[in-house]
Amino acid sequence: MNKTPVIIDCDPGIDDAMMLTLAFSRPELDIKLVTTEAGNVSTDKTTYNTLSFLTYIGQDVEVARGLEQPIFRSLEIAEDIHGEGGLGNVKWADPILQESDRTAITAMYETLLASDDPIIIVATGPLTNIGALLLAHPEVKPKIKLISWMGGAAVGGNMSTTAEFNAYVDPHAAELVFRSGVPIIMSGLDVTHKAYITREEMEELRKLGTPFAEKAADMMKFYTFTQSQTPFSPPHFEEQIRLHDVCAVAVLVAPELFKGNDYYVEMELEGRLTAGTTIVDYTHKTGKEPNANVLHSVDREGFVKLFFEACTTIGQKLLEK
Amino acid sequence: MNKTPVIIDCDPGIDDAMMLTLAFSRPELDIKLVTTEAGNVSTDKTTYNTLSFLTYIGQDVEVARGLEQPIFRSLEIAEDIHGEGGLGNVKWADPILQESDRTAITAMYETLLASDDPIIIVATGPLTNIGALLLAHPEVKPKIKLISWMGGAAVGGNMSTTAEFNAYVDPHAAELVFRSGVPIIMSGLDVTHKAYITREEMEELRKLGTPFAEKAADMMKFYTFTQSQTPFSPPHFEEQIRLHDVCAVAVLVAPELFKGNDYYVEMELEGRLTAGTTIVDYTHKTGKEPNANVLHSVDREGFVKLFFEACTTIGQKLLEK
Amino acid sequence: MNKTPVIIDCDPGIDDAMMLTLAFSRPELDIKLVTTEAGNVSTDKTTYNTLSFLTYIGQDVEVARGLEQPIFRSLEIAEDIHGEGGLGNVKWADPILQESDRTAITAMYETLLASDDPIIIVATGPLTNIGALLLAHPEVKPKIKLISWMGGAAVGGNMSTTAEFNAYVDPHAAELVFRSGVPIIMSGLDVTHKAYITREEMEELRKLGTPFAEKAADMMKFYTFTQSQTPFSPPHFEEQIRLHDVCAVAVLVAPELFKGNDYYVEMELEGRLTAGTTIVDYTHKTGKEPNANVLHSVDREGFVKLFFEACTTIGQKLLEK
Amino acid sequence: MNKTPVIIDCDPGIDDAMMLTLAFSRPELDIKLVTTEAGNVSTDKTTYNTLSFLTYIGQDVEVARGLEQPIFRSLEIAEDIHGEGGLGNVKWADPILQESDRTAITAMYETLLASDDPIIIVATGPLTNIGALLLAHPEVKPKIKLISWMGGAAVGGNMSTTAEFNAYVDPHAAELVFRSGVPIIMSGLDVTHKAYITREEMEELRKLGTPFAEKAADMMKFYTFTQSQTPFSPPHFEEQIRLHDVCAVAVLVAPELFKGNDYYVEMELEGRLTAGTTIVDYTHKTGKEPNANVLHSVDREGFVKLFFEACTTIGQKLLEK
Repeated sequence: MNKTPVIIDCDPGIDDAMMLTLAFSRPELDIKLVTTEAGNVSTDKTTYNTLSFLTYIGQDVEVARGLEQPIFRSLEIAEDIHGEGGLGNVKWADPILQESDRTAITAMYETLLASDDPIIIVATGPLTNIGALLLAHPEVKPKIKLISWMGGAAVGGNMSTTAEFNAYVDPHAAELVFRSGVPIIMSGLDVTHKAYITREEMEELRKLGTPFAEKAADMMKFYTFTQSQTPFSPPHFEEQIRLHDVCAVAVLVAPELFKGNDYYVEMELEGRLTAGTTIVDYTHKTGKEPNANVLHSVDREGFVKLFFEACTTIGQKLLEK
Repeated sequence: MNKTPVIIDCDPGIDDAMMLTLAFSRPELDIKLVTTEAGNVSTDKTTYNTLSFLTYIGQDVEVARGLEQPIFRSLEIAEDIHGEGGLGNVKWADPILQESDRTAITAMYETLLASDDPIIIVATGPLTNIGALLLAHPEVKPKIKLISWMGGAAVGGNMSTTAEFNAYVDPHAAELVFRSGVPIIMSGLDVTHKAYITREEMEELRKLGTPFAEKAADMMKFYTFTQSQTPFSPPHFEEQIRLHDVCAVAVLVAPELFKGNDYYVEMELEGRLTAGTTIVDYTHKTGKEPNANVLHSVDREGFVKLFFEACTTIGQKLLEK
Repeated sequence: MNKTPVIIDCDPGIDDAMMLTLAFSRPELDIKLVTTEAGNVSTDKTTYNTLSFLTYIGQDVEVARGLEQPIFRSLEIAEDIHGEGGLGNVKWADPILQESDRTAITAMYETLLASDDPIIIVATGPLTNIGALLLAHPEVKPKIKLISWMGGAAVGGNMSTTAEFNAYVDPHAAELVFRSGVPIIMSGLDVTHKAYITREEMEELRKLGTPFAEKAADMMKFYTFTQSQTPFSPPHFEEQIRLHDVCAVAVLVAPELFKGNDYYVEMELEGRLTAGTTIVDYTHKTGKEPNANVLHSVDREGFVKLFFEACTTIGQKLLEK
Repeated sequence: MNKTPVIIDCDPGIDDAMMLTLAFSRPELDIKLVTTEAGNVSTDKTTYNTLSFLTYIGQDVEVARGLEQPIFRSLEIAEDIHGEGGLGNVKWADPILQESDRTAITAMYETLLASDDPIIIVATGPLTNIGALLLAHPEVKPKIKLISWMGGAAVGGNMSTTAEFNAYVDPHAAELVFRSGVPIIMSGLDVTHKAYITREEMEELRKLGTPFAEKAADMMKFYTFTQSQTPFSPPHFEEQIRLHDVCAVAVLVAPELFKGNDYYVEMELEGRLTAGTTIVDYTHKTGKEPNANVLHSVDREGFVKLFFEACTTIGQKLLEK
C-alpha cells in the first residue's frame, strides 16, 4: 500500500486530540512529524498535550515544538473553551514520548526536503509555524502537496463578528500561507459548524466501552459545557459538539463526504473591527485566480461514522496491547 | 387622516425613482422635503434627475441639493449600472420644479426644527447629508422619529466582497448615523436581494398601458441589462430587477411584508479589504445594545403587488390631469 | 479704525485664558463670538471657564457651547496639565455672562453669514466645531478669511511620539479643516515650544501688581508645575512656561514676530502608532499645493513683551472700573 | 589579531558597493558571508552586482541570494537613483565568483550556528532576510552580537514625508528585527544625511589615480546626478554624495566618529500616510526599554578620511595583484 506522507501541525486542544485520533487510526496515512502551535493554549501546553495524548494512544512519532507567539499579534488563547490545560481537564498519560531536539520549523524543513514524495500538511491551529516556514524557506514549496487547514470562514466568525479563531490569532501567518501558491483546502466555520456530533451520539461513543472512548467522551463533554457558557453562544451549542479540527483530516481520507468551491482567499490584516478575517471572494469581485478550496458542506452522518470508526480502531488497538 | 411627515434623501438612480413613485403614491405620507446625495451619479445629476422625475409625476415639493463629496473618501459612482445620466437613458421631463435656495442640510435642519411631530427620514443613497447634519446639529435628533435606510448588508457585498455600495461610498457618514442614537431600519442587501421583480413582471407592468408604466419599464429594463453586464454578476441577474431603494419606503407603508431583527451595527472604517462594511453583530459578539432593525426577508409577492399599485396610481393620476 | 472681525473657538485651559487676555486687550480685534470645545477639559468645563474668565476681565460677548465629543474618537482630556477644573485651580469669577441660546456651530454659521467682511477664526483646541461646520455648511467658506490654529507639529509630538494634543484628540476634524480650502496659519509645537516665558519672567509679571497679574501668575505657576510632573518631561520644562495658544492670536496682531513656510498638511487618520499626526510635507514629497502656513520660529523676547503688554492693559482696565 | 566575524546583508546599490569597499579593506573584520536583498534593485540584480563588485575587488567569499519580495508589501525599487543595473551604469567585472548553493537564510542560519563567537550582522537594505530568519529561527539570536542597520529615521523620510527607503520597502521585516531583542545600531537618515562627501572630495578621490578610485568616482557621480534629479531634491543634493550604507560599517570600525542615543523603536505598519515609518521614541512617550542605539551625528571629516583610506587600500591592493 502506498501511504500518503503527512505532517500535522496542531494546538491540542480538545478537537485537535480528536483529529489526531482520526489521523493515527488511518493506515493510508504515514505521519512523519507532529509540530505544535500556540493557539488554544500556549506552546508549552500544546506540546505537553501532544506528547501526553500520543503517549496514551501508543504512537511513536517525532513531536517538535513550534513558535511561542503569533508573528505580530499578542497571543490570544481559548482556555475558556478547552480548559486550563487544554484537554478539558482530562488526564491522558504522563508523556513517555520526548520532545524533538529540532524546532518545529527545522523539523518540517528537513522532513520536507528529505522526502521523495510531496507531503500533505494538516494544520489545525493558527498558521504561525507554516507561515514562517514558507516565508523563510520558499524552496520547500514543491515538496508540499497540499495544506489542509481548519480555519477561517467565508461568512461569520467565532472570535469577532467576522473572524474565526485560528485566522484571528495569527492573520499575518495565514496571509503568508494564502499567498504561497501551495494548494490549500480550507475547512472553515462554514463547514465545521455542520461537522458536529450530538450529545446522544457522544453518549453512544461512551458505550463503545473502551477506556479510550470513555476519556474521549469526557473530554468532549467538557467542550460542550464550555461552549455553551460563552457569553453569546446559541442555545443549540449545548447539543452539538463541533469537531472543527477533525474535518482537516476527514477531507483527506473521505473526500466524498465534503463539498467545496475554489475561491480566492486573502486576509484582512488591518481593520479595526475586521482584522483577522478571511476574505473569501465568493461573489467573484476580485477577478483573481482561486488559491483555496473552501469547504461549505459535509455529510454529517458519514462524518460521524468515520469518527466513530476511528475511536473504535484506536480504542481496540489499545486494549490489544 | 393623520399623515406621517417624511423627508426623503436620495440619489436617483433608477431604483430611487421607483422609490419616489411608491412614496408619492401613498396618501398616508406627507413628503415635506426631498434632498439629493452624491452616489449613483454626481449631485448635479441626482438633483437634475429628482427635479425631472418629480416634474413628470406632477409633484410640487422642495428639492434641496446635498453635499458634493463623501466626508473623507473620493466619490465613487455607479454610472455603469444607472446609465450616464443616472436614469437608464430614459428622459422623463424638462424640470419645471426649481431647486431650493436652501442647502439640503439647512433645509433638513429647518424642516425638522419647525415640525411639531417627529419626522421619518427615508435615505436611499450614501448617508453624507444626514451624517453631517447629525454631527453638526445633534439638537435635531428628538425631531427624527426614524431613519429608514437602504444600505449595508449583514452578509456579503456588491462593491467589494463584504461592502454594499451606499455604505462603501461614505462609511464615515454611515458611522455617524449608526452612532447617533436615532432609531434606524436598515434595508441591506440581505433583504433587497429578495425584493425584485422578474422580467415577466416588468413586461406586465408595461401592459398597464400608461405612458408612465411604459417609461418605468424601459428604465428598469436598462437596469437589468447593465446589472447583467458587470464583471461577475450571477446569471439570474438578468431575470431579477432588484428594487433596493423601494424597500426603504415599502417597510413604512407595509411593515407586515418585512421581517428583521434588532442588532448592533457599526462601520469598518479602516480595513484594506473591508473598509465600508457594515458590521452587523448578528452573532452577538459585542454585547452592545442594538441600534438598528436589520431587515432580512420580504414577502416578495406582496412587495411586487405594492409596487404595481403605486405605478398604477401614479400612472392614472397623470392621465387624469 | 477698521477693526478685524474675529471668532474664537477655545477650550480653556490655562493657555487659552492667556490667549483670551491677549485677544481682548487688542483694540484692532472685534471679537464677535467665543465658542467652546471639548479638549483640555470637557465642554461643560471649558464653557464654564470661558464664562468665568470673560466675566472676570469684564467682557460682554456671546459665548456658545460646542460639541461634546470628537467626531469619531473618544474624548481625551488633559486635566493632569490644566487641573481638574481646567484653569490651574485658580478661581476667576462666578460667571455673570450667560451661555448663548445658540449652539457653537449655529452661532458661527449665522455670525459668518451675517458679516459683510470675511472673519478670522482663532482656534486653540481640537477642531471639532469648525470641522463639523465646514463639512455641513461649506457655503460659509467665503466668509472665513483665515483660520489661525494652535495645533499639530511638523516634527515630534506631545501626546505620542508624533502627534500633538489638539490634532490627536480629533484628527478627523483637523482633516476636514485642512481639506477645506480655507487659508490656515498653523502654530504647531514647532513654534509654540519656542513661545515660552521663563519662571523669572512669570515672577516679573506678578510684580505688575494688579490682582489680574497675580492670578495669571498663579495659574501659570500651576501649569509649570504640572508640566514638569508628566512622566517624561525634559528637565527644562520647569523653567519654561509654554504659551501655546497665545501664538494663534499673537501672529495676527504681531506677524513680524513669527516665521513660517507654506506647506501641504494632511492628517494621518489610521496608523496604529501615528493616528492624529499632522503630516507636514516639508520635504516636498507629495507635489501638492500648500494649504497652510506652518510657523516654525518666533522672536521670543518680542512675544513676551507683547504678552506683558496685554496683561498690563487688562490689569489696568480692571483697576479703573 | 582577534578578528570580528561579520555577515553582510546588502542590496548593491551604489552606496552598498562603497560599504563593501570599507568592509573588505579592514583587517579587523572577518567577513564570513554576504547575502543579498531585494531593495535598490531586484534580488537578481543585487546578487549579480555583489558577485561582480567582489570579483573586481578580488574577494573570495560566499554570496547567497536572498528573498525576492518583501514580506507583505510589493517590492519598490530605486532604479531612478542607482541606475537600471543598480551600480550607476559602471561596469565592474564579469563575475568569476559564483553564487552559493545555499539560500541567504540557510547560509546565515548555518553560519551563525557554526560560529563559536557571536557574529555582527551588517544590513544595508530592507530587512526581509534577517526578519524572516529571526522569525523562523529564533534559536540563532544568541549567536548574533549586533545588527548594524542602515535604515529608518527619527525625523523625516526620503520615500514619504516620514519614511526612509529601507524601512518603507519592508516595514514588517524591520518590525520583526526591532522586536527580536538582538542589539541594534540604527544608522538612519538622521546621521546618514551628515555622512556625505562633497563633489570636490569626490574629484580628489579620482586623483588617487587607481582604476578602482576612477570607477568609484564615476559611480558616485551618477548617484549625485540622479539624486539631484528627483522631483523635490534640495539644491545642495548635487553637492553632497550621501554614503548612507557606509555608516553601518564605519560605526563598527570607528565608533568614535559617531554619536547616538538608546531609544525604543517600533514600526508603523498600518497608517495611510505613515506606513513604513520608524517610530523612534526620542520624547520618551512609551515608557518602554530602548531596543536600538540610534545614531544622530558623525564627525564628517573623520568619516571621509576613513572612506578615502578604504578606497586607497583596496585600490593599491588591486594594483599589486
